[in-house]
Amino acid sequence: MGMVGGGRGAFIGAVHRMAAALDGQIELVAGAFSSNPERSKASGEDLYLDPRRVYRSFAEMIEQEANLPEDERIDLVSIVTPNHLHFEPSKLALEKGFHVICDKPLCFDLTQAYTLKKVVEQSGQIFALTHNYTGYPMVKQAKAMITNGDIGAVRKVMVEYPQGWLSTLLEATEQKQASWRTDPSKSGIAGALGDIGTHAENLAEYITGLKITSLAADVNTMVKGRLLDDDNNIMLKFDNGANGVLMCSQIAAGEENDLTIRIYGEKGGLMWRQMFPNSLEVQWLDAPKQIMRSGGAGLYPEAEKAQRIPAGHPEGYLEAFANIYKEVARQIQDRMYGEEKESTDYDYPRIEDGVRGMEFIYKVIESGKSDRKWLDM
Amino acid sequence: MGMVGGGRGAFIGAVHRMAAALDGQIELVAGAFSSNPERSKASGEDLYLDPRRVYRSFAEMIEQEANLPEDERIDLVSIVTPNHLHFEPSKLALEKGFHVICDKPLCFDLTQAYTLKKVVEQSGQIFALTHNYTGYPMVKQAKAMITNGDIGAVRKVMVEYPQGWLSTLLEATEQKQASWRTDPSKSGIAGALGDIGTHAENLAEYITGLKITSLAADVNTMVKGRLLDDDNNIMLKFDNGANGVLMCSQIAAGEENDLTIRIYGEKGGLMWRQMFPNSLEVQWLDAPKQIMRSGGAGLYPEAEKAQRIPAGHPEGYLEAFANIYKEVARQIQDRMYGEEKESTDYDYPRIEDGVRGMEFIYKVIESGKSDRKWLDM
Amino acid sequence: MGMVGGGRGAFIGAVHRMAAALDGQIELVAGAFSSNPERSKASGEDLYLDPRRVYRSFAEMIEQEANLPEDERIDLVSIVTPNHLHFEPSKLALEKGFHVICDKPLCFDLTQAYTLKKVVEQSGQIFALTHNYTGYPMVKQAKAMITNGDIGAVRKVMVEYPQGWLSTLLEATEQKQASWRTDPSKSGIAGALGDIGTHAENLAEYITGLKITSLAADVNTMVKGRLLDDDNNIMLKFDNGANGVLMCSQIAAGEENDLTIRIYGEKGGLMWRQMFPNSLEVQWLDAPKQIMRSGGAGLYPEAEKAQRIPAGHPEGYLEAFANIYKEVARQIQDRMYGEEKESTDYDYPRIEDGVRGMEFIYKVIESGKSDRKWLDM
Amino acid sequence: MGMVGGGRGAFIGAVHRMAAALDGQIELVAGAFSSNPERSKASGEDLYLDPRRVYRSFAEMIEQEANLPEDERIDLVSIVTPNHLHFEPSKLALEKGFHVICDKPLCFDLTQAYTLKKVVEQSGQIFALTHNYTGYPMVKQAKAMITNGDIGAVRKVMVEYPQGWLSTLLEATEQKQASWRTDPSKSGIAGALGDIGTHAENLAEYITGLKITSLAADVNTMVKGRLLDDDNNIMLKFDNGANGVLMCSQIAAGEENDLTIRIYGEKGGLMWRQMFPNSLEVQWLDAPKQIMRSGGAGLYPEAEKAQRIPAGHPEGYLEAFANIYKEVARQIQDRMYGEEKESTDYDYPRIEDGVRGMEFIYKVIESGKSDRKWLDM
Repeated sequence: MGMVGGGRGAFIGAVHRMAAALDGQIELVAGAFSSNPERSKASGEDLYLDPRRVYRSFAEMIEQEANLPEDERIDLVSIVTPNHLHFEPSKLALEKGFHVICDKPLCFDLTQAYTLKKVVEQSGQIFALTHNYTGYPMVKQAKAMITNGDIGAVRKVMVEYPQGWLSTLLEATEQKQASWRTDPSKSGIAGALGDIGTHAENLAEYITGLKITSLAADVNTMVKGRLLDDDNNIMLKFDNGANGVLMCSQIAAGEENDLTIRIYGEKGGLMWRQMFPNSLEVQWLDAPKQIMRSGGAGLYPEAEKAQRIPAGHPEGYLEAFANIYKEVARQIQDRMYGEEKESTDYDYPRIEDGVRGMEFIYKVIESGKSDRKWLDM
Repeated sequence: MGMVGGGRGAFIGAVHRMAAALDGQIELVAGAFSSNPERSKASGEDLYLDPRRVYRSFAEMIEQEANLPEDERIDLVSIVTPNHLHFEPSKLALEKGFHVICDKPLCFDLTQAYTLKKVVEQSGQIFALTHNYTGYPMVKQAKAMITNGDIGAVRKVMVEYPQGWLSTLLEATEQKQASWRTDPSKSGIAGALGDIGTHAENLAEYITGLKITSLAADVNTMVKGRLLDDDNNIMLKFDNGANGVLMCSQIAAGEENDLTIRIYGEKGGLMWRQMFPNSLEVQWLDAPKQIMRSGGAGLYPEAEKAQRIPAGHPEGYLEAFANIYKEVARQIQDRMYGEEKESTDYDYPRIEDGVRGMEFIYKVIESGKSDRKWLDM
Repeated sequence: MGMVGGGRGAFIGAVHRMAAALDGQIELVAGAFSSNPERSKASGEDLYLDPRRVYRSFAEMIEQEANLPEDERIDLVSIVTPNHLHFEPSKLALEKGFHVICDKPLCFDLTQAYTLKKVVEQSGQIFALTHNYTGYPMVKQAKAMITNGDIGAVRKVMVEYPQGWLSTLLEATEQKQASWRTDPSKSGIAGALGDIGTHAENLAEYITGLKITSLAADVNTMVKGRLLDDDNNIMLKFDNGANGVLMCSQIAAGEENDLTIRIYGEKGGLMWRQMFPNSLEVQWLDAPKQIMRSGGAGLYPEAEKAQRIPAGHPEGYLEAFANIYKEVARQIQDRMYGEEKESTDYDYPRIEDGVRGMEFIYKVIESGKSDRKWLDM
Repeated sequence: MGMVGGGRGAFIGAVHRMAAALDGQIELVAGAFSSNPERSKASGEDLYLDPRRVYRSFAEMIEQEANLPEDERIDLVSIVTPNHLHFEPSKLALEKGFHVICDKPLCFDLTQAYTLKKVVEQSGQIFALTHNYTGYPMVKQAKAMITNGDIGAVRKVMVEYPQGWLSTLLEATEQKQASWRTDPSKSGIAGALGDIGTHAENLAEYITGLKITSLAADVNTMVKGRLLDDDNNIMLKFDNGANGVLMCSQIAAGEENDLTIRIYGEKGGLMWRQMFPNSLEVQWLDAPKQIMRSGGAGLYPEAEKAQRIPAGHPEGYLEAFANIYKEVARQIQDRMYGEEKESTDYDYPRIEDGVRGMEFIYKVIESGKSDRKWLDM
């Protein structure tokens, strides 16, 4: 694997590396870790890489790796840069015959999203997007329960993603994570909405199997001086008639990273909370609430396959993240050995999820400015 | 005290009686427990009342009690009937010189609400509305913290009241509680919204001290055949620029009575959950979350006054409910002894809260039918 | 009802009064609220009692009430004094034909306990001991589940009662609650053990239906200058071969009143926690954990009978306490009308529980001083 | 790194591999994965190892790797076999100049323990024992708080490790994990006590910095036909006068892996629960309880160093386990570059912890058979 971005001081690059390493299926051997060649080099040294494979730019990496013999060159490019630097390396990597794992949201704007979708389709290469929260075993259990009709038809979806770390104008201090996320030239048209709102949207559609058909949004910038939204309330309608609310905020003071979803069906309800990810609360109309547990009794195979260790040995964010890498690695390997299964056999978010997320961003921002209540999506 | 409604089989009547009895300040001595005189009589016997003071109708009770010598007659009427039977007994009781404690929502329609407000003002009598959830000590602590600026200016309010007991068409079985609540001739124009949504609205305004200025509502009837709303999502704007979401639902399968409020300010956040009412979670931008506890350390006097027993001895719904009766009893007694304090010294919901709730109901229902996003309140 | 003790400033007296009032079955009409006649009088006034029935001593109350006509005099005496003042009023009341509800532990020493047991038996009167924690609906559910074999034979019982309020030498400040509880002339031979350890012992035997047959105790006084134990660890053996641990401490800094019991059987386990009393966690060998809820689905009649309001409307300490008064009132009434059922039909703790608690205290204190590991009980 | 044990179907071997891989500091290049050479070979293939470095026995691996040039051979041996196969590979590896990371408990019997301690000391090599639970950031926070006197002198320690998976005679089904753990020829003299009790003992001494000085044990075999203990209650005395209870059980039906510790000091208390490892509850005599969080505010550097990702991104069992590997890797690297710090600068469990655990096992088993209450340790 080769990495684009993720040099010294980056957050999500280290996450991708740990996720890739965890299962021993993927080895990081190359990288263009920074647009600053010196920093890229230094980062490569930190990671014990062969200096010849630490490149000055993503273009250099992709070109030169493509020229290596097939059994030496990387087969996968991991893209962990800010939003405005997703599109070009993804496109180039795909066109040069590499598979791609890209951080979310998909890219800078909707035009790029549609273009990239075509590039992926034409390339035939694997493209995965790290909507990592769908990697948790109990999220897969929730999805399987709904697919199997356990709680009946879904009627209501409450999904929220509150954080509090942007309660002050942190970007004014040049804090790295805050700076690019609140900068329209790097993040695109959305702030909190793109950073975390798309996770919430993706999670809701992934678990329920439903599609959002219309929405009414209250898009807010609560901290004076901020250039993008930092807080959103969005009412939702789904294609089966269900309703819902999506809230995402980065000014929810004191909140860490509390992505939570509750789904109510005709016969029961589900609750999952990312900060305590090994539990899934399942409640019923006429029976006591149950606490399903990762590694525990009563799970569907989809959940069991996604866990590594027994119940009570907590798995976390990195393990869920690694499930995307693991599934991609499995597909690459199967393809290599001519044993590739149906596409649906591999469980990771794809280009379609990325396009959907971009469309969601655009529709919410439009709704936020509109006097009309419901906008179709 | 005399009671209107609350005969055999009623739910809220028994609650009022236990709440009134708890602190030994109020004695139930009269009642018109049912529109059916036989049932009223039987209910009075259950309660060991003097048969002469068990009446055939609220009018009879109020008239005859008013004719008793001052030191024998009741001074307070408790009204625990369905919504459409709040107005008339309240009005008559007030006009005949009795104080009134009335169940919520205030009455059947907005016209009645405005009329009753005038009656209360003209009578000079005490009128309390049992928005009982504001009676919890930790709700009072939350209010005091916000008043004192502990979490800074409020930016966001998430309040929700999910129940699941109307997930099926329960009214078709003639279940008593379901029947009148889903019947427009008894409940008025709203179902879940009036029954529990007004509690959520009242709680949010009570704790924050803010007023809702506009709203955008998604009003739903999710169970086929039901005549009133059973599920609502409402986006809110408050008078200080804060935003919010109010969700109330009676089709949230598996939920009991999970009224929950989260308030985010510039410096911290608060979370209170009715089902675990003795705790208040307080979180900060730069310090660990705290769990404040009823009877515990660090509370404001407003909270301390509202609790009866030490920390770790859980108080519940009845104790909170009783706090309304206790405050009303205190005011009656102070007035009797010529020691009445400022009106704000007595902490219970009033006619204004009731009118506000009725206005909220009407605005939400209007918004639900409107294509316009924001309606002013 | 007449009360002995519970004057101004007392804690448990007010609890008994609220518990007695809650269900409207019992009326407080007489009292000897303090050994100080002035204080007794003042307390009676606070409670709106007829001054003629506010007495200067328990003896006076019992004698004079016994002389009143049958339909005027009290039928029940509630004794809410410190331990050393339980025996004499109980004995006198029983001998004069009154029923008794007495606070725990039963009395000052074991000799008194055995004597009182005889007095109760000879009197034929009702005698209840306020081991109030057995009054919670979910405790009754736990007991019923074990009786019905739901979790198989019990193998292990972990019961603990940690408090932190005596972490300092509070008695040196003359704080009223601390003073008598740590004074051997008022509490007897035990401190924390008698005050809270007996609750834990009673709860364990009540729920499991098992008897402790031997024990090994570590009896500690952790705060310098204290005259009685403030912390105990006790290993237990039960009559069916199960083992257990009982911990009670009043120096568990930061703990409120966290009585908790976990019971493991061959097929599953139960967990109940007094501070969150409306839930009972039920776990299974091969199925997800369940959260049973007061007022919720799947309960035995024993639990349903003990609750007053629907699920999600939390009941607390006072409601559980009131269940003892309610059951005693029911038995008194049934006896009055010649409709008394089998003794086991009335669910409240009795003289036998009190004697058992005193024996437990004596055996633990003996064990604490012994080099031998197991002492038989 | 070379691995001894951990072939196909093993549990803890895979854990060690993921832990070693996570931080990209250690590479698995060799192994003797099974005493069955065919299975060892197959396991090596699964792991993409060079077949020449997949050995038929640990002895072969150690001998042959020792003969490789210094820059090619492994520097670390990871031993993940059952207890009876810890001693010999550890001893040989150390004597041949390799560092060792060994699973717990240290070895089969106390004699081996004392011998191995000498071998470690004579070798000068690094020896780490995977008492992995001490690797959690919030465990390190707890330790630092006590070291810094935040909760005052420790008075009481409640530590427990309940599991339920051996509630039936699982070993009769030849389930692999159950079989060796209940077999005296593989586990030694203890069952649950060695498997999980030593974790609890190690955690208590690690966090408090105290030493157990005497104990009184109730050692039980609750499942008929089982050959070793499956359930223990142990009363403890510590060297500063504190008392405690250690409970470990594998017949606590329905429990997963609920290692929990509560520590009460003069000024406050701490609670940490392995199944929700990112939180540390901190309670105070006169202030509200706090919830400290991994990655959150108010932590000591010892905790901050041990975490990888921000608050709210849950870390789990593997990350804590990996902290041992990371610290060992850091020491190896420092030594390699001549920059080794004080031994205490590297935070992982050592041979002394292992010997202590073995002494604890022996003393508890002795106590279980003794009529004397307290045995000195």
